[in-house]
Amino acid sequence: MISYELIAKKRDGGRHDRQELEFLIDGFVSGRITDPQMAAWLMAAYLRGLDSRETAYLTEAMVASGKTVDLSGVDGEPVDKHSTGGVGDKATLVVVPLAAAAGVTVPKLSGRALGHTGGTLDKLESISGFRAGLSVAEFVGQLKSVGAAIAAQTADLVPADKKIYALRDQTATVASIPLIAASIISKKAAGGAKNILIDVKTGSGAFMPTLAESRELAAVLTEVGDGLGLKVRCLITDMSRPLGRAVGNALEVKEAIDCLTGGGPADLRELSVRLAALMVEMAGLVADPDGAVRLVTKCLDSGQGAQKFKEMIAAQGGDSRVVDSPDLLSVAPGRRVIAAESDGWLNIADCGRLGLASAVLAGGHLGEKGQIDRSAGLVMLAKLGDPVKTGDPLIELYYSDKDRLEAAGAAIAEAIGVVSARPEVRPLIRE
Amino acid sequence: MISYELIAKKRDGGRHDRQELEFLIDGFVSGRITDPQMAAWLMAAYLRGLDSRETAYLTEAMVASGKTVDLSGVDGEPVDKHSTGGVGDKATLVVVPLAAAAGVTVPKLSGRALGHTGGTLDKLESISGFRAGLSVAEFVGQLKSVGAAIAAQTADLVPADKKIYALRDQTATVASIPLIAASIISKKAAGGAKNILIDVKTGSGAFMPTLAESRELAAVLTEVGDGLGLKVRCLITDMSRPLGRAVGNALEVKEAIDCLTGGGPADLRELSVRLAALMVEMAGLVADPDGAVRLVTKCLDSGQGAQKFKEMIAAQGGDSRVVDSPDLLSVAPGRRVIAAESDGWLNIADCGRLGLASAVLAGGHLGEKGQIDRSAGLVMLAKLGDPVKTGDPLIELYYSDKDRLEAAGAAIAEAIGVVSARPEVRPLIRE
Repeated sequence: MISYELIAKKRDGGRHDRQELEFLIDGFVSGRITDPQMAAWLMAAYLRGLDSRETAYLTEAMVASGKTVDLSGVDGEPVDKHSTGGVGDKATLVVVPLAAAAGVTVPKLSGRALGHTGGTLDKLESISGFRAGLSVAEFVGQLKSVGAAIAAQTADLVPADKKIYALRDQTATVASIPLIAASIISKKAAGGAKNILIDVKTGSGAFMPTLAESRELAAVLTEVGDGLGLKVRCLITDMSRPLGRAVGNALEVKEAIDCLTGGGPADLRELSVRLAALMVEMAGLVADPDGAVRLVTKCLDSGQGAQKFKEMIAAQGGDSRVVDSPDLLSVAPGRRVIAAESDGWLNIADCGRLGLASAVLAGGHLGEKGQIDRSAGLVMLAKLGDPVKTGDPLIELYYSDKDRLEAAGAAIAEAIGVVSARPEVRPLIRE
Repeated sequence: MISYELIAKKRDGGRHDRQELEFLIDGFVSGRITDPQMAAWLMAAYLRGLDSRETAYLTEAMVASGKTVDLSGVDGEPVDKHSTGGVGDKATLVVVPLAAAAGVTVPKLSGRALGHTGGTLDKLESISGFRAGLSVAEFVGQLKSVGAAIAAQTADLVPADKKIYALRDQTATVASIPLIAASIISKKAAGGAKNILIDVKTGSGAFMPTLAESRELAAVLTEVGDGLGLKVRCLITDMSRPLGRAVGNALEVKEAIDCLTGGGPADLRELSVRLAALMVEMAGLVADPDGAVRLVTKCLDSGQGAQKFKEMIAAQGGDSRVVDSPDLLSVAPGRRVIAAESDGWLNIADCGRLGLASAVLAGGHLGEKGQIDRSAGLVMLAKLGDPVKTGDPLIELYYSDKDRLEAAGAAIAEAIGVVSARPEVRPLIRE
């Protein structure tokens, strides 16, 4: 009867204590609380909310559902980096080696593509031989030898999150700030780092479209982390347009390598330097922000970041020659350019639809099963707010399967347009 | 994706159209919509509500999930009777034969005990040989030959309700007025009668404890019935104390027979006559209310009601001699009297706990599996508001299994007490 009463309590707007949330999570993982019961509780929590105390208790209970990585044998103050997910967000691929080159130990556990957003592991796996599935011992060993590792969340870390997420995904209870915060912080806490930098995306390509919601998420993340003894810092960055120009796994790795070797789009470089510098600060290596930026910029311009990326790839079985020869990455042979049909300025009405278009080209959109095509994707030939003339190329699609062009084209038609007044281009780093 | 969007729509307070609710119910019964999805939708519907139009669409979709009984071959205007459930509510056992004796055809599909409330079928099955599981053909045949039948809801009528109810029961989404209304009306509609009299119970022994909620339920039941082309009338009656004195299956059948043969408690007689008279009116047999009461009273006092009950029992394979010799009913041999420990007035703080105590004595309380003991129960020796002196008997428990006495006694200690000021005794018929 107690599980029933727990649901009724949240249904009626009550507040749970620590014991109740432990009972809920423990019962759910062990099967005493059924999937429909958890689904009903999640909807009640979605509609009634969880305060920061309840969210912290929930998060701790989720961490306790599995193992945690022990980083006590790793020197210094490891700093983890997380993004709430966006379109073309390959910053992790630049930031992690860059921060590591500057001396930060970066234990990074990553996820896969979710909805319209890309996944870091999917991107890295477009590098031939790259192995994301490290054991905890391999992960910790690589942190000691290389200073950074990007690996898959193993099944024995936070099993409650995986089980809850599967339910939220089908029951329309994903977009709840406390549930999102508990999911993120529980995984980060289980990953072992005490310092966590979170890039909270905001805009039509993010899960939180408005700045107000993104701010609230950032506040809850910080508070919940604090409740668990973690130092969490958040940067709120714009996701009303893709980060950089490339969207799609291999295409994004190429762009990240460009950035690490001195080229690439300005926005990707700007954000990557800023994030890596914050990690340098959080690790206690350089106290003043400007000094941290100088150190990171030096590591980028000297090629030390690129060198660290090579070491990481090699340590995880990948072909590290791609850093010097990005053309070794397999890119889809089919090309189609979408051109402007009128004069004006490029507008991105729905950045999420661009992510969806890329996922469609890769066969990885919702509902379709099977292997995704990591060589497919798209490249923005014009950026948000660029002036364009009729016939100017706007987007180039990369595809292997022609049958996917139609659905991708439809998504792009909803995503972008040429407008008669220059659209607002928000600053990349909002707060 | 559509099932996801349906959940999201109700989550965000949207209103469903007919197609959406048909999709929901059809998808749930066929398995395309999963149990967790339905549980999340139910919680969203519980918290966001369903308006009367949505409730009518939901009800129709539930009716369409299974077969319906065809009463077109039955003469006159059949009238069904339903109670929202209470403690000691054996009125159906008196009302159905009484209305039938007065000329009303009564097709009554009944349920089993639910929570602290008794079930008409469980009561009737304490009569040796009584068979509640009639086929639709047997049910309709008996309506033609006897004029009344009380049978179990068959599995092919409203399968959606059974499946939804099982989820609501475990996910704390039972106490929702639109969901209750949809469940009641869908079953009644599938039962084939176009006229339905509903006894809406109010008070601590009912599912709706307050008069305001009971009124709302009555209004929704009438409106939804109207939307489905049914004539629904509701009577709101008090359930802050048991109806009559007996609570427990065989004990209640005995009391119902007492009433049909001219004895029994005054409140049971009053309510039964009133309900049967309303059915006579609804069937169009007598237009004026006083005339209907006179007709029904005549049928009761002349023994025609008792005679009709005998015919019904015999037609369903039961031992109809019990009507003349109620001692043929098996009553549990163990007896324990609970006496007043002080002078004052008998108060019933929680009538639901009395129902629970009876269920515990029968081994039928929540969670316990296996055969229930239909011979167990309790009899109120004092009524709500009676003056009592120390040592006066208040309740007599009937039991076969001594081990159940302790839990039943604990429930009774929470249910009743002797108080120093006379408690309010509400009128039996509220509205």
